[in-house]
Amino acid sequence: MQPHVSRVWNFSAGPAALPQAVLERAQRDMLDWNGSGASVMEQSHRGKRFIAMAAQAEADLRELMQVPADYAVLFLQGGATQHFAQIPMNLAGEGDSADYIVSGHWSAKAASEAKPYVRVNVAASGEADDYLKLPPRDSWQLDPNAAYVHYTPNETIHGVEFHGVPEVGAAPLVADMSSNILSEPLDVGRFGLIYAGAQKNIGPSGLVLMIIRRDLLQRAGRPMARIFRYAEHAAADSMLNTPNTWGWYVAGLTFEWLKAQGGLGAMAERNRAKAELLYRAIDGSGGYYRNPIELSARSRMNVRFTLHDAALDAAFLQESEAAGLLALKGHKALGGMRASLYNAVPPEAVEALVAFMRDFAQRHG
Amino acid sequence: MQPHVSRVWNFSAGPAALPQAVLERAQRDMLDWNGSGASVMEQSHRGKRFIAMAAQAEADLRELMQVPADYAVLFLQGGATQHFAQIPMNLAGEGDSADYIVSGHWSAKAASEAKPYVRVNVAASGEADDYLKLPPRDSWQLDPNAAYVHYTPNETIHGVEFHGVPEVGAAPLVADMSSNILSEPLDVGRFGLIYAGAQKNIGPSGLVLMIIRRDLLQRAGRPMARIFRYAEHAAADSMLNTPNTWGWYVAGLTFEWLKAQGGLGAMAERNRAKAELLYRAIDGSGGYYRNPIELSARSRMNVRFTLHDAALDAAFLQESEAAGLLALKGHKALGGMRASLYNAVPPEAVEALVAFMRDFAQRHG
Repeated sequence: MQPHVSRVWNFSAGPAALPQAVLERAQRDMLDWNGSGASVMEQSHRGKRFIAMAAQAEADLRELMQVPADYAVLFLQGGATQHFAQIPMNLAGEGDSADYIVSGHWSAKAASEAKPYVRVNVAASGEADDYLKLPPRDSWQLDPNAAYVHYTPNETIHGVEFHGVPEVGAAPLVADMSSNILSEPLDVGRFGLIYAGAQKNIGPSGLVLMIIRRDLLQRAGRPMARIFRYAEHAAADSMLNTPNTWGWYVAGLTFEWLKAQGGLGAMAERNRAKAELLYRAIDGSGGYYRNPIELSARSRMNVRFTLHDAALDAAFLQESEAAGLLALKGHKALGGMRASLYNAVPPEAVEALVAFMRDFAQRHG
Repeated sequence: MQPHVSRVWNFSAGPAALPQAVLERAQRDMLDWNGSGASVMEQSHRGKRFIAMAAQAEADLRELMQVPADYAVLFLQGGATQHFAQIPMNLAGEGDSADYIVSGHWSAKAASEAKPYVRVNVAASGEADDYLKLPPRDSWQLDPNAAYVHYTPNETIHGVEFHGVPEVGAAPLVADMSSNILSEPLDVGRFGLIYAGAQKNIGPSGLVLMIIRRDLLQRAGRPMARIFRYAEHAAADSMLNTPNTWGWYVAGLTFEWLKAQGGLGAMAERNRAKAELLYRAIDGSGGYYRNPIELSARSRMNVRFTLHDAALDAAFLQESEAAGLLALKGHKALGGMRASLYNAVPPEAVEALVAFMRDFAQRHG
């Protein structure tokens, strides 16, 4: 342990903050994990110790999210972006079409990357509204024959979030939950497939968590190498080839930590309070700060805001970093600021941010 | 730092031993990396600090392997197995064929996983010899029109290794170096593409290192999502999407460590001495231990051996583990024992193993 570790409040959109307790545990066990005399990174994924840890991580995740038994849980690689392609490869046959709800940068990208593998029907889009609001459910042009319906419950860059799961009929609902998974309780049974890059609410990058209804594993998809087939990964307990063992381990530590925090109900309460605190500070700043998103679509995870004068942006970023508030710069496509408030960002971080914002506004009038 | 860390000698085939100095550095910096006040896992891959680290890792690798300027270095995901498929997707057009040299489990798998994407010509195979020797170069039936020639310089499971790079004419030579990369100096210019899963000689699993001649990036391949195209990854400096940031970081620490050890020339000498010590102990055991591989094909990295009586295997494994010698069990397909002697396994580990083997033979007569 370092004698003088000085930690900052980290608002990074991803790779993002991890719980300090998780980092301390990983640090402590780095050279000698689980009595093995070696790091967890140095263990065979086929060894007893690693398999027991991996199974415990899956069991904890199933308990946290109350995953029904007819769903497989997979620990994969490639980032959500690879699965933008792999999902249609697995779920759609030749000539099939799929519905995509486009509500921001990431769902637009999911639709675009799917095109080599499925006829993409953009059933609804918020583009004409600059993604400042969500396309209302009654405007969606769903195809009753779609192989699946894909949407992105929370848009990391645009800062919009669906509150509640949309009803889409018989087609399996596929959700990229990279930036809001584990942030609140969820009725997994409403979904056909949930997937998430780990680097926001789960663990380090390079790991993708997938929850897939087992009947979907029977879909033939198209001719492809085994390594791309979800059914093969499920049959091999995600050890079809060597998985990202470190990522799986840190994810497991995070699941353990979430359970100790009181589970997803407690996290939902904490996350709602954090977001409310920040939005109130923005809305109550008399126009000094501004969030452009329609109230009902505001994200609890990624809070965009602009300063009343963009000429102050550089000073805001410099002074906030000096005050120990990391990574507040907005995505380059949109400018302004963004504070990401994932599970591992404690309420104290948001309090510090809000205090800084008030102070900054006073000093820079 | 833990007060009572007890480390074992780790002969795991992969994920495998890492240099202790690398683990200690990762441990020290876990909560506060590079003065950032956050873990390296909590940094945006687009941030200045991470980009500088990533570039330094690439520069160190280029220096260690003397990678010519007309080669791109990529940090990818998916394991070597995914690239068994992705290589033909990128390098072969519709109707193309490729030559595969099959010298053991992994090259056979590479050939098999390529089949959905290219006509596979098995130009040579050691299968009839149970992979105990390598198919001699003058027996290879190479196709002058092959899109590329694929081989596996070292077979992790079968314990055979090509010593020297084969001449294959004009077709680009593609090599899966997962288990021998960085173990000795290499003339990269002889290859079209080199790839390696990181979990043996580089770092943690979930990272793939690729070195690809830039002209090969121009090959059209076939219609596919951008995420599968090596050219897109190269154009984005391996940040087309979020890379495995922890893996990249640990790989960088390993490259730094290799430079401090004196580079690949020094590692080659050390690796040769380690392998010789173990093979001498096996060959000099009067048949108590036995390695079945043809002398000229013996691997420096993965040393297979059997006991003269398989009924002693269980005792050997139990007593060796009690003596702090980890993961000596051979692959389940072959039985017996296997000691993997990658860069991070120090000479002292092999000395301890050899001493144990002598002692075991005396005690169990």
